[in-house]
Amino acid sequence: MKKGVVNPWEVKGDVDYRKLMEEFGISPLKELPDVFNKEILFRRKIVFAHRDIQKILEAAKNKKKFVVMTGLMPTGKFHIGHMTVIKQLVFWQSIGAKLYIAVADLEAYNTRGQSLEEGRKIAIEEYVSNYLALGLKEKNCEIYFQSQRSKDAKKANAFYRLQNLLARYVTFNEFKAVYGEITPGKMLSSLLQGSDMLHPQLPEFEGTCPVLVPVGIDQDPHLRLARDISKRIKNPKFTQLSSTYNIFAPGLKGGKMSASDPLSYVSPTDSEKEVENKIKKYAFSGGQATIAEHRKKGGNPDIDVSFQYLKMFFEPDDEKLQQIYSAYKSGELLTSELKEILIEKITNFLKKHQQEKQKAKKQVDKFILK
Amino acid sequence: MKKGVVNPWEVKGDVDYRKLMEEFGISPLKELPDVFNKEILFRRKIVFAHRDIQKILEAAKNKKKFVVMTGLMPTGKFHIGHMTVIKQLVFWQSIGAKLYIAVADLEAYNTRGQSLEEGRKIAIEEYVSNYLALGLKEKNCEIYFQSQRSKDAKKANAFYRLQNLLARYVTFNEFKAVYGEITPGKMLSSLLQGSDMLHPQLPEFEGTCPVLVPVGIDQDPHLRLARDISKRIKNPKFTQLSSTYNIFAPGLKGGKMSASDPLSYVSPTDSEKEVENKIKKYAFSGGQATIAEHRKKGGNPDIDVSFQYLKMFFEPDDEKLQQIYSAYKSGELLTSELKEILIEKITNFLKKHQQEKQKAKKQVDKFILK
Repeated sequence: MKKGVVNPWEVKGDVDYRKLMEEFGISPLKELPDVFNKEILFRRKIVFAHRDIQKILEAAKNKKKFVVMTGLMPTGKFHIGHMTVIKQLVFWQSIGAKLYIAVADLEAYNTRGQSLEEGRKIAIEEYVSNYLALGLKEKNCEIYFQSQRSKDAKKANAFYRLQNLLARYVTFNEFKAVYGEITPGKMLSSLLQGSDMLHPQLPEFEGTCPVLVPVGIDQDPHLRLARDISKRIKNPKFTQLSSTYNIFAPGLKGGKMSASDPLSYVSPTDSEKEVENKIKKYAFSGGQATIAEHRKKGGNPDIDVSFQYLKMFFEPDDEKLQQIYSAYKSGELLTSELKEILIEKITNFLKKHQQEKQKAKKQVDKFILK
Repeated sequence: MKKGVVNPWEVKGDVDYRKLMEEFGISPLKELPDVFNKEILFRRKIVFAHRDIQKILEAAKNKKKFVVMTGLMPTGKFHIGHMTVIKQLVFWQSIGAKLYIAVADLEAYNTRGQSLEEGRKIAIEEYVSNYLALGLKEKNCEIYFQSQRSKDAKKANAFYRLQNLLARYVTFNEFKAVYGEITPGKMLSSLLQGSDMLHPQLPEFEGTCPVLVPVGIDQDPHLRLARDISKRIKNPKFTQLSSTYNIFAPGLKGGKMSASDPLSYVSPTDSEKEVENKIKKYAFSGGQATIAEHRKKGGNPDIDVSFQYLKMFFEPDDEKLQQIYSAYKSGELLTSELKEILIEKITNFLKKHQQEKQKAKKQVDKFILK
């Protein structure tokens, strides 16, 4: 093996994760309890860093209350890039977390001009039903719309009251540092997001307890702002937010996966034909230009999108993944063959997922604003 | 009578009301239905101007639904300056208005650093119980705290949702034009105030209907901002806000009445001794320096604070008021005598008011957030 060759668990990508981590006091995620190895996102360091995760681990270990909170933007289509967070949620739920999931319909209204009706439709049809199909359970899980926090008036009042109270503890310059150009709509959205993250600890909800927010590293500025605000508030006293950071699933053609570009992702709602076509035609390859060259020089699995998808989502068997990695690297496995492996895996996944989604659809209504 | 001498109903004061009115399209209030003459604030043009009052008058005449909305800042002490609005509310209620009264506790928190607990206490003890003593009825009247809009979750969600939605329809420059230096706390307060004024028309509340906001002329920028925002919103479609404008009760020593300076006002919670002392010692006089000079030149009732208080609040008999006006102007009535008239009137008022307030205290709890 050449010097500098890395194993498939190494953190990669265009983002300089290491620099970001040093700059903002985020720590590499290591020495997790055994149970975390069940979930490949942890085992393979797709979730690679954290801030203040200790109190979450402690709460989980001691069967104390803790919350895992995330939001979803109800625009565009659900795609496999979203699965990094959902699979974490399902995992956290399995080890005792209470989940809070905010549908950011007011943010979509104020920052993207999308109506609340449209947001509601997309949230249910695209997101929540896929979450359920991916294993999210109704128990210990609150999904709510920002525009309609609760059917319990005490909770509704408390949630929005907090949004308003937070305004006292933040300056315009802080908003500008996070958002660049700031509009009233963006500011309200930011404060509402602050309430999303902090309100689980209000007495009307769970009371003071550790709250974990799993995010992509690009979301950290929001989290830092929420942490800064929360530590300035004396009453109620919030336990400081914890966070985990995952690397992004690369877009099909390399680069970013974007919900507004269907050729940049694979979606659980794509048909088998679409998936096959997308992967064969567009999936960015780490292989060589010709078969002869590939056999001679080998491929580069670390930049190959098909391999990344296998690693992040579709090949749970570590040994098999390592075999694929080595075979591709050595030139033994061709790009077309690697793509066939992925297509078969996704096709199987899709069959199961679409069945689960049919079942989930019946569940959705009682789940939302129950 | 000299040229330029005015009658006691004329609008006076340091504020250039006429200029303000022309500049912002506010019209003089005239030709009100007879029933308005019951209330001296209208009869004597203390309420002197309006914007779009026609639709309110029409609704009242046709027994259609209409709302009169106001807010109270739960800081400092209740004083007679506040009575200009309360007496209007009581009048509007008597001719069929539904009243909405917002306790601006979140605004006090965000712009004055006052706790919600303190705001609640002051609102109840200083304001609401005095409102009731002044004749406000429980029927057709909603008093709510900004921090806790409703015990009905649908209403609570709708109220705060509107605050968030409004953010899309306003720019920072507009806030700056109204507030000068703007902070996140001020901005949230302004949007919450917008929701205070507009939410009565939401389907969860009264539905589309005319809403009147009685204000002092200094509050008009807030109203203009709310009107500008409301006309940009297509769904729901709001009936444009109406407003009335009253002149300010002058401070005891002349100038502004300020809740933070007890010597600038008379309060219904002052003792009789305090009132007597304050008026004798501090009430700004339109009289001459010596009795001889006063007899010769006469006094100026138009700048005399005691006379203004009689006119605005304490002498309901127009004929008697005119007599006092003429007698003071001619020099027949001395300042000390004018003050005695006011002291006697206020003393009688206080006796009745304090009894009513005792009764009101028992009512307050069921009134608030019923």
